[in-house]
Amino acid sequence: MRMYDIIKKKRDGGELTTEEIDFFIRGVTDGSIPDYQTSALCMAIYYRGMSVRETCDLTFAVRDSGEKVDFSSIRGIRVDKHSTGGVGDKTSLVVAPIVASLGVKVAKMSGRGLGHTGGTVDKLEAIEGFCTTLSDADFIRQVNDIGLAIVGQSRQFAPADKKLYALRDVTATVDSMPLIAASIMGKKLAADDDCIVLDVKTGSGSFMKTVEQSRALARLMVDIGKNAGKRMKALITNMDRPLGNAIGNAIEVIEAVETLRGNGPEDLTEVCLTLAAHMLSLADMGTPDEALALAKRAIADGSALAKLKECVAAQGGNVRLIEDTNNFKRAKYSHAVVSPARGYIAHADTEAYGLASLALGAGRNTVEDEIDFSAGIVLNKKTGDFVEESETIATLFSDNAAAFPAAEQKLLAATTLQAVKPADEPLIYDIIE
Amino acid sequence: MRMYDIIKKKRDGGELTTEEIDFFIRGVTDGSIPDYQTSALCMAIYYRGMSVRETCDLTFAVRDSGEKVDFSSIRGIRVDKHSTGGVGDKTSLVVAPIVASLGVKVAKMSGRGLGHTGGTVDKLEAIEGFCTTLSDADFIRQVNDIGLAIVGQSRQFAPADKKLYALRDVTATVDSMPLIAASIMGKKLAADDDCIVLDVKTGSGSFMKTVEQSRALARLMVDIGKNAGKRMKALITNMDRPLGNAIGNAIEVIEAVETLRGNGPEDLTEVCLTLAAHMLSLADMGTPDEALALAKRAIADGSALAKLKECVAAQGGNVRLIEDTNNFKRAKYSHAVVSPARGYIAHADTEAYGLASLALGAGRNTVEDEIDFSAGIVLNKKTGDFVEESETIATLFSDNAAAFPAAEQKLLAATTLQAVKPADEPLIYDIIE
Repeated sequence: MRMYDIIKKKRDGGELTTEEIDFFIRGVTDGSIPDYQTSALCMAIYYRGMSVRETCDLTFAVRDSGEKVDFSSIRGIRVDKHSTGGVGDKTSLVVAPIVASLGVKVAKMSGRGLGHTGGTVDKLEAIEGFCTTLSDADFIRQVNDIGLAIVGQSRQFAPADKKLYALRDVTATVDSMPLIAASIMGKKLAADDDCIVLDVKTGSGSFMKTVEQSRALARLMVDIGKNAGKRMKALITNMDRPLGNAIGNAIEVIEAVETLRGNGPEDLTEVCLTLAAHMLSLADMGTPDEALALAKRAIADGSALAKLKECVAAQGGNVRLIEDTNNFKRAKYSHAVVSPARGYIAHADTEAYGLASLALGAGRNTVEDEIDFSAGIVLNKKTGDFVEESETIATLFSDNAAAFPAAEQKLLAATTLQAVKPADEPLIYDIIE
Repeated sequence: MRMYDIIKKKRDGGELTTEEIDFFIRGVTDGSIPDYQTSALCMAIYYRGMSVRETCDLTFAVRDSGEKVDFSSIRGIRVDKHSTGGVGDKTSLVVAPIVASLGVKVAKMSGRGLGHTGGTVDKLEAIEGFCTTLSDADFIRQVNDIGLAIVGQSRQFAPADKKLYALRDVTATVDSMPLIAASIMGKKLAADDDCIVLDVKTGSGSFMKTVEQSRALARLMVDIGKNAGKRMKALITNMDRPLGNAIGNAIEVIEAVETLRGNGPEDLTEVCLTLAAHMLSLADMGTPDEALALAKRAIADGSALAKLKECVAAQGGNVRLIEDTNNFKRAKYSHAVVSPARGYIAHADTEAYGLASLALGAGRNTVEDEIDFSAGIVLNKKTGDFVEESETIATLFSDNAAAFPAAEQKLLAATTLQAVKPADEPLIYDIIE
């Protein structure tokens, strides 16, 4: 088998066989296929696409390129959610305790943030003492004991994806549906869950800029997961505005705790309850409507918040921070961003909001960067809200006051005002199953 | 300027600026652009194409990537022909003396053969003593003295093309019209001619498999040449059968000499006279019809043959071989390939004929291979001819008799017989100016 023939076949619109795709991914992983051939094939795939069968094969080859975990010693149904990456997305911190409090197992391996999107692991590390690395034995024991553990992905999951993504990133071949799906699902399937609910973000802060594209990507990923024997669903949710009001780390944990107390922002609460309902429903906890009622009850009776505290305690975190979020260390400085005019907020460029938060110290430009956990943005006004001239639209937090002007500039440039109230956009566009 | 942005622009169908194309070719030449980005761009160009303006810019950037020659001290109009590569193509050996004998200067720098196509320089080296390397001063002096010199391309012409071609060859991006045109013309324009007649081969033995593709490539190359200030024409000629009857080196020289004596095969004679007529016409020697009459006279009165002898003598070759071609060293062994059945030769796969000749020792698989100058194939029958069962259709020559079975097998497999006489195909499909 020759890589040349594989490139030529795809270039001419052919469908690659399972063996050809395996050959390609093995060669990417062991370095026997040179990068210039890989990038040529990625560009051909960009134009010619891949069938669902090819995309499944590519995903499975990526999954099988590295380590996998074995959760078979966890008792009960294991469920997970996965977001395609958003700004202000703290849903895992809310959803995982809800689901676990109802007896469904959540053995969560999360990522760190890079660029404009944050990561669940970084947010958890804003909780003093919280340990995001556990041995396999401790991780599995904790999930069996309390139903929930959340750690960072320390394993060599899907190394082929790491190499492929690095190459796609510099050859303008990221924006390919099958390559995106295989990248996300190849890593996700290396973990060992029974049910997966995908949260496919759509809009300015996400991979997919239109609802149609997001729906197609969701459909593809759900089909791939089912082909791998998983129970799958996907939500298409709005990322044309940040989710909730907080963008950062400690302030996102605080918002998640408020949501578990039943006092969260409306949009965040709705997305979390819907995700939780579908996760529970996949895990044999009734219809989505029945499961939604269970999820709401878990918030109302405090059992979900209690589960988060249990998890924080089990992983060495300071539970006092969860019990009273005023105990979180505050940023040294804050700065109010005021509106330069009066009108309705017509549009917010979510990606720019994420980049502003990054500039304040809440994220990483490179994997080596240190995070300022107290830094971030709290939005006082969001899309659709009316603001008076000089009214505060957002509050910036940072230990580095010098970062305020650039972040403020980004935020104001990303926020459009208009005279009439903009039409409401749906928060959840669709559910793919 | 970033290569990423250039790839993305072309990927999305944009037209690259002159500056972007220069940046790309400079980076290919100096190695600052990694191969994986170059191959991604080549694939994007494969799908999106290039405008004539972009293709001209690419060609000029390739031309300017290395050394160029300065023929300004040659007196008179300098004319050249360039073939896109064929099997049994000895036209240069016929056309150059005709044109030079009529007072137009031919300062020819030719290539060596590789794979199934032969090279003029190899053929000339079949003439004992013929030196294909001359200093610039000697080369220019000879052209001024006798109107004709033929040497090998020893210069670092268009190094960007060398790198690009090597990469395209392994990434399935050779078959792109603008990339082919820029590769051929980038090298050709590095030489310093006033007039260029292109011989664009079409059919099984060439780059372009259809007349339509060949016409488009010819049109593009003629336009590029004109944009570079050259007088240009292109012939589209049939390469669905070898040109003439000889495929090899010494036997091709012999056939060229016969053609200069007026005893050449009909097809070879017609293509040579047509090429010569258009070269002469471009060089202000009258209309193509008037120039054709001049070319015929140069053969009839022996002046073209005399010019070849003069050139051979000037470059140290043994003129006795030209005076009596029986003096050429013969191959040790010959072998008659007979027809397995009776019928008309319907089709000959020219590329396979070239590969059979290569197998006999007449060509090179790699640039290091040594050539057996006496090896090759003489065709006794060609497409359209009727053959009886067991009648000889071709004679193989080689110093290595062990090569006969494989070459015979290739030749027979490449030759199709049928009961009815096939329709005549044109020899010259079109003339593009």
